[in-house]
Amino acid sequence: MRIFTTNRRRSVAAQGEVRLIREVRRWLGDTNPRTPFGIGDDCAVLPPSRHAQLVTTDPVIHGRHFDDSVSARAAGAKLLKRNLSDIAAMGGRPVSTVLSLALAPETDVGWLRLFYLGLAACARRYGVRVVGGDITQAPAGFFGAFLTLHGKSNGPRVVTRQGARAGDRLYVTGALGGSRLGHHHRFSPRLAEGAWLARRGEVRAMLDLSDGLAKDLDALTSAGLEAALVGTDIPVSAAARRLSRRTGQTPLAHALGDGEDYELLIVVRPGRTRESFERDWRRRFPRVRLTCIGRFALKGKLPPGALPLGEYHGFEHLR
Amino acid sequence: MRIFTTNRRRSVAAQGEVRLIREVRRWLGDTNPRTPFGIGDDCAVLPPSRHAQLVTTDPVIHGRHFDDSVSARAAGAKLLKRNLSDIAAMGGRPVSTVLSLALAPETDVGWLRLFYLGLAACARRYGVRVVGGDITQAPAGFFGAFLTLHGKSNGPRVVTRQGARAGDRLYVTGALGGSRLGHHHRFSPRLAEGAWLARRGEVRAMLDLSDGLAKDLDALTSAGLEAALVGTDIPVSAAARRLSRRTGQTPLAHALGDGEDYELLIVVRPGRTRESFERDWRRRFPRVRLTCIGRFALKGKLPPGALPLGEYHGFEHLR
Repeated sequence: MRIFTTNRRRSVAAQGEVRLIREVRRWLGDTNPRTPFGIGDDCAVLPPSRHAQLVTTDPVIHGRHFDDSVSARAAGAKLLKRNLSDIAAMGGRPVSTVLSLALAPETDVGWLRLFYLGLAACARRYGVRVVGGDITQAPAGFFGAFLTLHGKSNGPRVVTRQGARAGDRLYVTGALGGSRLGHHHRFSPRLAEGAWLARRGEVRAMLDLSDGLAKDLDALTSAGLEAALVGTDIPVSAAARRLSRRTGQTPLAHALGDGEDYELLIVVRPGRTRESFERDWRRRFPRVRLTCIGRFALKGKLPPGALPLGEYHGFEHLR
Repeated sequence: MRIFTTNRRRSVAAQGEVRLIREVRRWLGDTNPRTPFGIGDDCAVLPPSRHAQLVTTDPVIHGRHFDDSVSARAAGAKLLKRNLSDIAAMGGRPVSTVLSLALAPETDVGWLRLFYLGLAACARRYGVRVVGGDITQAPAGFFGAFLTLHGKSNGPRVVTRQGARAGDRLYVTGALGGSRLGHHHRFSPRLAEGAWLARRGEVRAMLDLSDGLAKDLDALTSAGLEAALVGTDIPVSAAARRLSRRTGQTPLAHALGDGEDYELLIVVRPGRTRESFERDWRRRFPRVRLTCIGRFALKGKLPPGALPLGEYHGFEHLR
């Protein structure tokens, strides 16, 4: 199904705003609590919170984060999952969300319905309530959905990107690269994994890979450090290999630069706990790969054979 | 200053994402707390909250909520003020905000700087911290800023839109109509007024006027009721009168239908408190007009002379 329609009767403009919002509430069903805790007042009312709270915001824009080859349901789910991945990366759990939509008048109501149903199904699966939002008209040809997700810490600890030291090991979940072949909307946010990692004392820092390992690593690299990665240890996805046959780039270049992996990159302090950390992981997540891909070294003290990361580039958002 | 530039060196695309985000943090200055409480991690971390929390989301889109006749600073301030008005309408106080930007590659960095400075100045004035955000590339010609604002209740009470009964009086702050002549970005959100009203026991319900009185009234009108407004009592703004000379519509039609008033519409229970309510208001807000514009009647029992609201239309978002 196409996102924009030339049949005016099927367009959001023909529906009108009041009716459209009524429909949206129906599509969201039980994920949208009663007013004023959900859609329908000037603000949504959220209960007090005893834990540290988390907030993150990420959009999906047609032509950029999805196109007509992605189903409307998958696009709606991707919107929420992108944000869930950020909550996962701090070891948190999601709670509630608001959604601001900017859409062209010719957006197909049937498409929009499936978009919301996909979002609602995903919200239900992860226990997220959709508490509010806004719908605004955008110029012809534009569809953007801007979501803000609220979460809370699972326990006393929130894992940030700060704190890596020389000697710390770097781990990554899953496999990297080639996400544009489908993973970019089919991935599952690593919420259970993130929550488990936040309880492990040896985990020092963490983030979710969205712009590619080569670029995202910078955010974990404390001043005076450099990442010493072992090229042959990087888990390269089957999609990255397939894609490389098409593009002529190496599979490793795809794994380092493609972005939209939505895997966790984890900084683990060194020591005798390495074995127990990896063993406990395998017990808890037998089907999720966890790979040690290198460690942090002091700047200028890279061991021979370390991956020359400067030669690889991540995803550049503005060009 | 124009929002889009043909000089590539002045564009956000030439700047690149990493440098741009560094600049944004500089522009926001002290309104952006240190990581992880501000910009820079996967999520922003917010402290626990003992009070009920409020959340609302509203965007500004170029060509829709502002154009090149509005300064960049005013556009940035308007983005926050639109959302502050929603917090005001529940009697709350603002706390923190995240901002998701979708901008064309040719957006002028100098313009964007002024937009953020305007936003930051407004945030400082109302004690709002800018804790996170996202910047994503949009198609040529598009600029949209999607803000989510968090607030909390000032006291035990949050004023919703629910609860109006037959006999309740309707009040409005300020004067209505003609906002497109400048008020739409020059208004001050009624935060102090909203907080004061939330402490008054006679205030039953409240909202902020954004789509015009004729349309927004619906949201306050409980089942079985109808609003009986006195046309001559509606406070019509000077701008509405000026505009009516241009459009040929009556000033009253502008006051009822223009939208973007950002004034409070208040439902007050009847009784002997009317005099003290109005007197206390004048004492507390001597420079802000408060006008009784009518009351709620039982459906089908409108007094003779009541304004035929069905003949007036508010702002339709999708057409």
